[in-house]
Amino acid sequence: MNMQLKTVCIIGVGLIGGSLALALKRAGVVSRVVGYGRNTSSLQQALELGVVDEFSTDLAVAVREADVVVLAVPVGHMESIIAELAGHISANTVITDVGSSKQSIIHAAEQHLGNNITHFVPGHPIAGTEKSGVTAAFAELYQAHKVILTPGNNTSADAIALVESMWQQAGASVVRMEPHHHDEVLAATSHLPHLLAFALVDSLARLHEKSDIFEFAAGGFRDFTRIASSNPEMWHDICMANRDAVLKMLHLFQNDLSRLTLAIEQRDSQTVKDIFNRAKTARDKLCNKFLESDE
Amino acid sequence: MNMQLKTVCIIGVGLIGGSLALALKRAGVVSRVVGYGRNTSSLQQALELGVVDEFSTDLAVAVREADVVVLAVPVGHMESIIAELAGHISANTVITDVGSSKQSIIHAAEQHLGNNITHFVPGHPIAGTEKSGVTAAFAELYQAHKVILTPGNNTSADAIALVESMWQQAGASVVRMEPHHHDEVLAATSHLPHLLAFALVDSLARLHEKSDIFEFAAGGFRDFTRIASSNPEMWHDICMANRDAVLKMLHLFQNDLSRLTLAIEQRDSQTVKDIFNRAKTARDKLCNKFLESDE
Repeated sequence: MNMQLKTVCIIGVGLIGGSLALALKRAGVVSRVVGYGRNTSSLQQALELGVVDEFSTDLAVAVREADVVVLAVPVGHMESIIAELAGHISANTVITDVGSSKQSIIHAAEQHLGNNITHFVPGHPIAGTEKSGVTAAFAELYQAHKVILTPGNNTSADAIALVESMWQQAGASVVRMEPHHHDEVLAATSHLPHLLAFALVDSLARLHEKSDIFEFAAGGFRDFTRIASSNPEMWHDICMANRDAVLKMLHLFQNDLSRLTLAIEQRDSQTVKDIFNRAKTARDKLCNKFLESDE
Repeated sequence: MNMQLKTVCIIGVGLIGGSLALALKRAGVVSRVVGYGRNTSSLQQALELGVVDEFSTDLAVAVREADVVVLAVPVGHMESIIAELAGHISANTVITDVGSSKQSIIHAAEQHLGNNITHFVPGHPIAGTEKSGVTAAFAELYQAHKVILTPGNNTSADAIALVESMWQQAGASVVRMEPHHHDEVLAATSHLPHLLAFALVDSLARLHEKSDIFEFAAGGFRDFTRIASSNPEMWHDICMANRDAVLKMLHLFQNDLSRLTLAIEQRDSQTVKDIFNRAKTARDKLCNKFLESDE
């Protein structure tokens, strides 16, 4: 598809929004990227890094000529930015977002966007690192990664096609999903692991105060806990935005962990081995999949 | 120290035992490495890879001239090999092991080694990968890693000094610890994370059967679950050998996870943020420590 965008407006120029801007610029499919944010020094940095061509801290000015507005603020700020956006957006401007929970953002969009709702294409790139901010942005972030779009029945087919094409130009493969399904899948594969990593490191940090256990942490622990270096504020917002699915997965996991604990208590070797074996088989399969992409 | 070993016998020539053999050979501090095992083809492979100079499947023959016997079999096989060893070992041979739980192995040694117990130096190198087997062995495995020794009051000072020097020559730094403390520290930083990774991947694998959730797993999930590729049999044995400490840590973690779950249920943002923030601070400190060594 010969997509050519005149103006893309990135609302929130951090790792995710900044990397998309860089990828689109490198693909040569956008003439002008406008950044919007509240922090002038960070926007100035984005300008100096060539991530945006210009910026504004006035939302009306920033979105004025945009073909596409990409909402790349943390999940906790999505509703307020959508509400603010509503008064400034023209009828033909396509709006998309990158939020890790979809039902809550769709709900906010339905509340605030009025007729523009048909041009809102909810999205979520499955990519990121434990780093954040525009200085962490890089054009290759979305290469061989998936982007999930969760449009509704009333979403404009042209708007969907445009957003799909935009992400493909950034190197991603695009899939569509029901918002509810997206939220459960992400709660399972992303939000739950982050919660476990945060909870584990916090538990052990309190033990560490009594005896220096971290002195003896090896590579496995390092890998296992890397995601506990993620932004606490951002992950709080994600857990709260996707609360129902997160709680469902937490309860499911806690039940399974209790079963494993009981098996160890009762010296039920077979159950312990079954769990470990099933996990290894599944992880090795998954590893092969990663090997095909980027592990 | 100018340690020079004539013969080292490695009982169980896999990743851990094989890497020690390679490291000692490279440091030029051992004249002859004898391998012992039950699997001739794997011993033959160790010979071809230059990990051992000779091997035997007869324990009496393998340990006959050894200055040091290194027990590098999985934790679940330690007691039977110690029992078997007892009849064949000479009074001056130093015995050490690499097991991930210390109290259970010390207990087995006290049961079976008789007077040789004074020459048994319990040890545990804090190193490894999710791979296993002699083909995964490499001489650098212990570089900048710690080895914990947990000798008792009756352990020969010379024997301790020899084992300490051996590990230092392999590139490790050696610390001493009470066996009980070792077992709790390892339950916290190694055994619990492995259990969580196995339990999580097993939970999600069952969800995956209903809907392809793993298709949407990203880098964070990959890192978080890498240790679920570890050897299930070996980890079963470790959990059972270190059962008390493992259960203590499991209960501690489950309590903490329940607190976090309750906070999300009750929309108690402050508690959630506090947990995430403390975890990030601790992990970032730890990350700096890793950066100083090998991350």
